[in-house]
Amino acid sequence: MNNFTFYSPTFFAFGKDRESETGKYVKQFGGTKVLIHYGGGSVIKSGLMDRVKASLDAEGITYLELGGVKPNPRSGLVYEGIDLCKKENIDFILAVGGGSAIDSAKAIAAGAVYDGDFWDFFLGKSITKALPLGTVLTIAATGSEGSPDTIVTHEDGMYKRAADGDAIRPVFSILNPELTMTLPAYQTFSGITDIMSHVLERYFTNTKDVEITDRLGEAVLLTMIKEARRLLVDPNNYEARANVMWAGMVAHNDSVGVGRAQDWATHHLEHELSALYDCAHGAGLAVMFPAWMKFAYKQDVNRFAQFAVRVWGCQMNFEDPEVTALEGIAAFESFLKSIGMPTSFGEIGAKEEDIPTLVANMFYQKPNHGSFIKLTEETSAEIYRLAL
Amino acid sequence: MNNFTFYSPTFFAFGKDRESETGKYVKQFGGTKVLIHYGGGSVIKSGLMDRVKASLDAEGITYLELGGVKPNPRSGLVYEGIDLCKKENIDFILAVGGGSAIDSAKAIAAGAVYDGDFWDFFLGKSITKALPLGTVLTIAATGSEGSPDTIVTHEDGMYKRAADGDAIRPVFSILNPELTMTLPAYQTFSGITDIMSHVLERYFTNTKDVEITDRLGEAVLLTMIKEARRLLVDPNNYEARANVMWAGMVAHNDSVGVGRAQDWATHHLEHELSALYDCAHGAGLAVMFPAWMKFAYKQDVNRFAQFAVRVWGCQMNFEDPEVTALEGIAAFESFLKSIGMPTSFGEIGAKEEDIPTLVANMFYQKPNHGSFIKLTEETSAEIYRLAL
Repeated sequence: MNNFTFYSPTFFAFGKDRESETGKYVKQFGGTKVLIHYGGGSVIKSGLMDRVKASLDAEGITYLELGGVKPNPRSGLVYEGIDLCKKENIDFILAVGGGSAIDSAKAIAAGAVYDGDFWDFFLGKSITKALPLGTVLTIAATGSEGSPDTIVTHEDGMYKRAADGDAIRPVFSILNPELTMTLPAYQTFSGITDIMSHVLERYFTNTKDVEITDRLGEAVLLTMIKEARRLLVDPNNYEARANVMWAGMVAHNDSVGVGRAQDWATHHLEHELSALYDCAHGAGLAVMFPAWMKFAYKQDVNRFAQFAVRVWGCQMNFEDPEVTALEGIAAFESFLKSIGMPTSFGEIGAKEEDIPTLVANMFYQKPNHGSFIKLTEETSAEIYRLAL
Repeated sequence: MNNFTFYSPTFFAFGKDRESETGKYVKQFGGTKVLIHYGGGSVIKSGLMDRVKASLDAEGITYLELGGVKPNPRSGLVYEGIDLCKKENIDFILAVGGGSAIDSAKAIAAGAVYDGDFWDFFLGKSITKALPLGTVLTIAATGSEGSPDTIVTHEDGMYKRAADGDAIRPVFSILNPELTMTLPAYQTFSGITDIMSHVLERYFTNTKDVEITDRLGEAVLLTMIKEARRLLVDPNNYEARANVMWAGMVAHNDSVGVGRAQDWATHHLEHELSALYDCAHGAGLAVMFPAWMKFAYKQDVNRFAQFAVRVWGCQMNFEDPEVTALEGIAAFESFLKSIGMPTSFGEIGAKEEDIPTLVANMFYQKPNHGSFIKLTEETSAEIYRLAL
């Protein structure tokens, strides 16, 4: 096991009606003048925004609003939010929405207390200072509600980059599973795919002997498999929604990743897909993860066999573990299809002839991808072709 | 799933040599004048204390020392520590040792900023304020390094009580698995039993449909089973020590307990054993948990069957799940024996004729025990008898 630090200080309020406590927590964490940051009209139409505002009003907290965050959030709105924060002396950012709203809010929180261009953070500068940030989560997917990460697409070229720092971890996050019930099935299952991918990026590692995080990761995957199947037939099942929502946080606050090298190449491969074609991130991951696995499994056949046996219930072929490894990959791909996810380029409108562009974007200003296997431009193109 | 809050803000530094960073973290969390609190001479003899002091010296932090914490820490030393803190204007408590040193330090941290008798907190008063506290952990067992809990035995009657509050969560904890290698086998396996018990107190619940925390708890149990067997034959295996040490934290910061009613009756039954006979807490749990299970399994046979199948690899008897449930309990008891733990009263010097005293102590000032099944004085006596 590698040495590590683990730090997940976010206060989580989980369950029914918890959004009514938003004002209480904003106050507790020092907010007096809030920027509410959100995406489309759904949080307004559902009445959620009214409930959030009422709870802020009840605590005497003032607020401004900035909506319009798109899936795969863009740099333009971040610049706008930063200007607003500086002009209006905002002292707290409240993201109401899914991972896109939260990631955009994180970038604003960091940029609002920085004199330079916030994009510096996405080119490698450390985020050491930010406005405090809270979230009211409406989609179980990115885990951004408990993570130090943000991902933004720069409109000058449509490439997607990540930044991170403990300063942008939410000080509180409110997770009410009921808020996820109105999601279209495609978004629900894209979210579940994203959650599973956050585990898988950590699970396939060359670090030996990290049984505890192997087992914790498998715990999340097994839960996702059970609950996804339940939500296919019963999308309004509160218990299934609740298990998925909490698992989404656990999958990405590094609970399942400490003590080991992590890969993340598949996320990098996917980011270029969603940047170029604006597909759902989870859908892009459903296309890329089986492809990456087919490329990568020979690096450690027994680890893929473990995945097959422990997660998918395959019987171990002790005479030929490669058979088991391949069965696990096939079971995963088949599961993704069963929950309506795309597993090939064509299904998300991606084109073979764009592969050189995808690879060029992926390596633009960023040469390192992967740890289980370090990718080159050539092998990245090979993996994209495996997803055709 | 029940509504819940989850808050685990401790900064964890895990791995080899991390104790050399103690001074850095004390400074980071605002300490300038530290009380180092510890147990016996082993942390001095091993050289650990010298390394910790050197790291404090390097940061220009002054300190006093208060040693002598006993297993099952006592109120007397807590009073002494509180007086010392008040007299010397201590602003940070550093516990160096296992759960006893940490629990004693937590009680001192709370008492040092309280005008009344610190025992009030152990009779139900909320701990809302305390000196900041850091830990350098030397035993994987209680999980106190990441929990809001402390347990102290009052010398006026030798009864053991618990208190808790977010204010006594450690601000940082340093976990170096190497520090646990010099432990006698009995302490190592008592610790592993304690860790497993922290999961089991949460696992047996009447709350339905909390798959994610079921699975996370099973992840810890499966890891303990694997690593305990490895440590039986190879006590200096760093990887096994590392997996156990991190699992010990995960088992008790409520990662495996959110969203469900928790039981804790077995801990209450055990506390009276270790208070009266001064046995290792883990050893007392090894005696009491199988007894409690034999008493409790009929409350939910299928939950015990799940424990048997998922944790112990038993085959489900679909015609008679009770057979499987009992197989799981037997497998657990057999495992405890295999790691050298006692599983009956006589092995820890406990006596049948003391059962009325144990029950009376357990219910003294504290009428509520258990949630899976609420215990009475009669049923508590019955469970003690099952452990004879």
